[in-house]
Amino acid sequence: MQHRQLSGVKESPEPILLRTPLLKRRWFIALTLLVILGVAFFGVPAIVHAADPTGGDTLQDNPDAAVNMAWTLVAGFLVWFMQLGFAFLGGGLIRSKNQTNYWTKSFMDFCIASLGFWAFGFALMFGGSKLFPGLEAGNALIGYSGFFLSGASYDVSTIMMWFFQMVFAATACTIVAGAVAERMKITAYLAYSFIIGALIYPIYGKWVWGGGWLSTLNILGTTGVRDFAGSGVVHMVGGLAALVGAAMVGARIGKFNRDGTPNAIRGHNLPFVVIGTFILFFGWFGFNAGSTLAATDLRISVIVVNTFLAGVTGAVVALYWVLARTGKADIIAACNGCLAGLVAITAPCAFVAPWAAVVIGAIAAPVMMATAWFVERKLKVDDAVGAVAVHLGGGIWGLLAVGIFADGTYLGVKGLIVGEVGQLILQIIDIAVVLVWVSVTAFLTFYLVKKTIGLRASREEELQGLDIPEHGIEAYPADSVPASN
Amino acid sequence: MQHRQLSGVKESPEPILLRTPLLKRRWFIALTLLVILGVAFFGVPAIVHAADPTGGDTLQDNPDAAVNMAWTLVAGFLVWFMQLGFAFLGGGLIRSKNQTNYWTKSFMDFCIASLGFWAFGFALMFGGSKLFPGLEAGNALIGYSGFFLSGASYDVSTIMMWFFQMVFAATACTIVAGAVAERMKITAYLAYSFIIGALIYPIYGKWVWGGGWLSTLNILGTTGVRDFAGSGVVHMVGGLAALVGAAMVGARIGKFNRDGTPNAIRGHNLPFVVIGTFILFFGWFGFNAGSTLAATDLRISVIVVNTFLAGVTGAVVALYWVLARTGKADIIAACNGCLAGLVAITAPCAFVAPWAAVVIGAIAAPVMMATAWFVERKLKVDDAVGAVAVHLGGGIWGLLAVGIFADGTYLGVKGLIVGEVGQLILQIIDIAVVLVWVSVTAFLTFYLVKKTIGLRASREEELQGLDIPEHGIEAYPADSVPASN
Amino acid sequence: MQHRQLSGVKESPEPILLRTPLLKRRWFIALTLLVILGVAFFGVPAIVHAADPTGGDTLQDNPDAAVNMAWTLVAGFLVWFMQLGFAFLGGGLIRSKNQTNYWTKSFMDFCIASLGFWAFGFALMFGGSKLFPGLEAGNALIGYSGFFLSGASYDVSTIMMWFFQMVFAATACTIVAGAVAERMKITAYLAYSFIIGALIYPIYGKWVWGGGWLSTLNILGTTGVRDFAGSGVVHMVGGLAALVGAAMVGARIGKFNRDGTPNAIRGHNLPFVVIGTFILFFGWFGFNAGSTLAATDLRISVIVVNTFLAGVTGAVVALYWVLARTGKADIIAACNGCLAGLVAITAPCAFVAPWAAVVIGAIAAPVMMATAWFVERKLKVDDAVGAVAVHLGGGIWGLLAVGIFADGTYLGVKGLIVGEVGQLILQIIDIAVVLVWVSVTAFLTFYLVKKTIGLRASREEELQGLDIPEHGIEAYPADSVPASN
Repeated sequence: MQHRQLSGVKESPEPILLRTPLLKRRWFIALTLLVILGVAFFGVPAIVHAADPTGGDTLQDNPDAAVNMAWTLVAGFLVWFMQLGFAFLGGGLIRSKNQTNYWTKSFMDFCIASLGFWAFGFALMFGGSKLFPGLEAGNALIGYSGFFLSGASYDVSTIMMWFFQMVFAATACTIVAGAVAERMKITAYLAYSFIIGALIYPIYGKWVWGGGWLSTLNILGTTGVRDFAGSGVVHMVGGLAALVGAAMVGARIGKFNRDGTPNAIRGHNLPFVVIGTFILFFGWFGFNAGSTLAATDLRISVIVVNTFLAGVTGAVVALYWVLARTGKADIIAACNGCLAGLVAITAPCAFVAPWAAVVIGAIAAPVMMATAWFVERKLKVDDAVGAVAVHLGGGIWGLLAVGIFADGTYLGVKGLIVGEVGQLILQIIDIAVVLVWVSVTAFLTFYLVKKTIGLRASREEELQGLDIPEHGIEAYPADSVPASN
Repeated sequence: MQHRQLSGVKESPEPILLRTPLLKRRWFIALTLLVILGVAFFGVPAIVHAADPTGGDTLQDNPDAAVNMAWTLVAGFLVWFMQLGFAFLGGGLIRSKNQTNYWTKSFMDFCIASLGFWAFGFALMFGGSKLFPGLEAGNALIGYSGFFLSGASYDVSTIMMWFFQMVFAATACTIVAGAVAERMKITAYLAYSFIIGALIYPIYGKWVWGGGWLSTLNILGTTGVRDFAGSGVVHMVGGLAALVGAAMVGARIGKFNRDGTPNAIRGHNLPFVVIGTFILFFGWFGFNAGSTLAATDLRISVIVVNTFLAGVTGAVVALYWVLARTGKADIIAACNGCLAGLVAITAPCAFVAPWAAVVIGAIAAPVMMATAWFVERKLKVDDAVGAVAVHLGGGIWGLLAVGIFADGTYLGVKGLIVGEVGQLILQIIDIAVVLVWVSVTAFLTFYLVKKTIGLRASREEELQGLDIPEHGIEAYPADSVPASN
Repeated sequence: MQHRQLSGVKESPEPILLRTPLLKRRWFIALTLLVILGVAFFGVPAIVHAADPTGGDTLQDNPDAAVNMAWTLVAGFLVWFMQLGFAFLGGGLIRSKNQTNYWTKSFMDFCIASLGFWAFGFALMFGGSKLFPGLEAGNALIGYSGFFLSGASYDVSTIMMWFFQMVFAATACTIVAGAVAERMKITAYLAYSFIIGALIYPIYGKWVWGGGWLSTLNILGTTGVRDFAGSGVVHMVGGLAALVGAAMVGARIGKFNRDGTPNAIRGHNLPFVVIGTFILFFGWFGFNAGSTLAATDLRISVIVVNTFLAGVTGAVVALYWVLARTGKADIIAACNGCLAGLVAITAPCAFVAPWAAVVIGAIAAPVMMATAWFVERKLKVDDAVGAVAVHLGGGIWGLLAVGIFADGTYLGVKGLIVGEVGQLILQIIDIAVVLVWVSVTAFLTFYLVKKTIGLRASREEELQGLDIPEHGIEAYPADSVPASN
């Protein structure tokens, strides 16, 4: 460990910035060109073709726009804050030797994915939806207007929509970080982040939320898949990409024995796990209730309470289930049970009554545990944090739950409990579509990355931990022990 | 310490879920029955008798409902987030060997308490208040409609109210976790959590906030106890339950010497203490200003500023007080002074002017310190985190402060400074009522738990720390030191 | 290290409070007098002269007041929460032996600064602006009404304004904590905090935001410096005070070698750095978008997205820049790049289009790196956390960016890209004014503190770490290692 600085003090290297004259640096030149191109291509049209960039007309047309925009933006802040929840959760569940790597991935993935969503994703997802100005062009499979938020999409409503949708794309992206933790290279992970934000997430999203073919599919007189806040669009996409990524990068050294039986690899910080769950739960209020895009839709209170009840019930069922079996109050199981409940209620949150939310949450916990078992024991895939169980398992159950528990009070969506079967069939079709779409595209993505950048750190790096080889800095330098300085 | 895994890798046990066939498991059968019963009893009536489950009529009757609901929900999110603040604060103040236990309690208590409040508490507290649909039945002592949010209480306003009230019940519950930390069994604590959320908190709450007898009591022409956001309803209830619980579970091994003098037991993480205080402060904005249930009540800005000023003044006074005496800038004293200021302003926040908030906060700090001294030195009770001093001491002072500093500008509430004495007498009666009610019911609760589940971990478990015996996992497994892996 | 308690248990000292009878204590008497004086001077006038302390008239005059107040308050909560972000960020970047000291400063500074802003700052900054009741008196240089929020400033709008402005003052204050960390005395730092909140920040703030001379300056037909949310008012002020403070307190022992070359001093907790950046980013949504003080100004969505895009672009450019040069994905550089992007977009956030936000963020990263290099290599000042680079460097760039990229859509503010040069000149004048004002006043402040309290801890204390000498408690007591108890 020659990198460790016992004294906490080492000679500071000449800063990178100043090694060569500014104008000789390729990066500086590239950046400058980017600026010039940006102005030329996006700047001028933006100003000329902007729809309503200050919102004066929008407010006059609809005085409720103020409260609805405030609601949607605040909800979006909360959803974005979930990024920190994922960072804590995964960070707690993995070892300290990979913390710098994990926190770097957790921070940079949303940066990269959101730029991908800005450049391409949003246009692919909402082009043709005509929901807001600048989103006119597109068909049932794919959209093609709104790139770079330029032209007519320089509009307060369109830009509000971009923000709220972007934080969802970023959520789908970051779900993968935990599953592939402790062995996927940082550069590989960041490349994947761009692709999911720019392509995988938005194209499927188009089909369900952007006016695409799944949203208009008719079965037995019932029209359209219903996934209110994204059990499928966000969580199944992220969870399935996590499964594919974890399978393709391979298990961590020491995870499986020669006979295929798994070993448990402990995390390094249990409070982090609970903190992460708290923050995710906090953000989920925005995730689900913000998806109305309107505070004037008073159903938001029901959505909040359904979200809450499913989360707590998932936690309680998981905790007592394990307690009854082992005599231990397993808080990690409870946290994952809680998250599975939250994932499961995400699709049906607006369509069901509170009692149903309790039932959905209660069932989500064993679904999560069964999925975890299946992934580890049958598929023999090493998901370092249980992301697949929570997001893929919980997500499937959530899409089904719409078809079962929707009570018909909201938007006329009806499930089995009020005698309709069409919605459930639509939901099953949706599940099949996600499974196929993400399996294929995530495989292609990780395959492409593998062949270009390479997916996995070397054996040596993995054993040492990725922090020093990839980042040059430990998460907890030695001087963190007071006596050492 | 045979449980510690130096390598961070151990053989993963066969998962609980799959040990016996699914249908033979009692838990599975019980859960299934629960689902069926739930549908039968709550599902059908909910849909048939629902008042306004989507809010269309509510919004038509009152266009301000949108902004008021958004305000109340966001405030509720903040109040709920205080759970994380309590977890950090208490976690920081106790030893690392009990962290898993503490974080488990901090996470699970609100889960359990909220389900108790859903099933029973809300109906007991607001039944008969007629504040919202479905809350018709009840008398001056107790309510009895709105159980399980079923029937007519499936209404957007009622459900909004449930959410905001539930997060308050959860706060009262979690105050106790710190006081009894490091020795109370997890199962005992969770049983208590259910009872406080289902019974202790809501019944007293009914008297003050649910239209009960304290809210209609008339003294010298002044009507009704005033506890705007719950110095009494939340903080005295929690603080007193904490005192009773800490007394009944007994002091930690090593806390008191044979001659009755106390020893200081250090926490494990000072940043956690400050983080917890920050998060609690953040949540308190929602706690107090959200209690208007309306953004159209513009007094919210005064409430926010009063809350802020009392908190910072409490911190400053506590810090300089200790600094003047010992020469040390004691941040733990400052954090508790801040929290005492916040607790104290909770009842009067809406009724006083900013200068009075400064005074109330300034006095809260010495009140907190005196209470801490009294609890430790006179009562000889071991409150591991100072919860009683902050919440009970601060809470009493807060209720009194309404009767002293209310300036008559808001809802006509007048205190001594504007020449009225009736309110102060009402507040004193209220204090006496809480003291009696919670002493008795908390005693009965912990007594019941003691006789059934048992309150306290064994001496061996306590010495080892509760994490391995009760939860099977340390908070900071050995591999958290990079070199070990 | 005789202070360390291996057992975690030590004899508890007689509590401070009870050492001498209550009435003999000077502090008690002083506090009592303060209460009486407070009531006499502020209480009575507050009630008599209050403008609209409950908001009834305000709401009647403007029904939008509810949604605008809710928006502004929630945004203010987020801005306040940034205090925790700064605490995490700086705490992570410095050594564990100074954590108690750092967290104490981080918590107490906003407490002290806000009381200074309550007593004096707000009146100096907004007196004469006539923006809200009670702010009538003042001239182009300084205001003088609204002290202690008394008299007519006991009004819901004025108090809302106070809250939102106070959290900005607190931000400027806390920026300094990191730069002077690990050697400035706690008492010195708290004295500085009062002065910046009461004088330095508000007087300059008056000139730009309080209707002062910079806001009315006319150049080439363009009127008024534009600093939408405070790249200059908050970040340059804080960043420059940080530079002056760090220079005057001197470098940490071991930072510079005899030949003037610097050494890198590692922090103790990398996740803290990322957590801090996450929380700051989260708060920045409120910082920028809340500065409209109105949700009815729908431009808020554009502000949010501009803020977001500049932040992520700053992070991405910094990360890949360092990666290209060193092969290491340096998350600390990325976090500072992100923050520099956020600082830079703070002034222009409302005036530019999203594509320009990307450009501004992209340029902010190298500006930050160049500033860091200049401060460390040329000025030879030891800024322990890079605060000067982020806030002063990013702030200057942000003010310039208004003059370059403002596209004329909002409030008619036009920059170079739409052919106007006047705004850019105004911005350059503004930059010069801040540089002079803060250099002089911050120098005087720290000079005064040095001559009275003393700025710097002793050499012995610094080597040991400030935690035990100044606070009497370590951040991570020894029992944080499970085995030790």
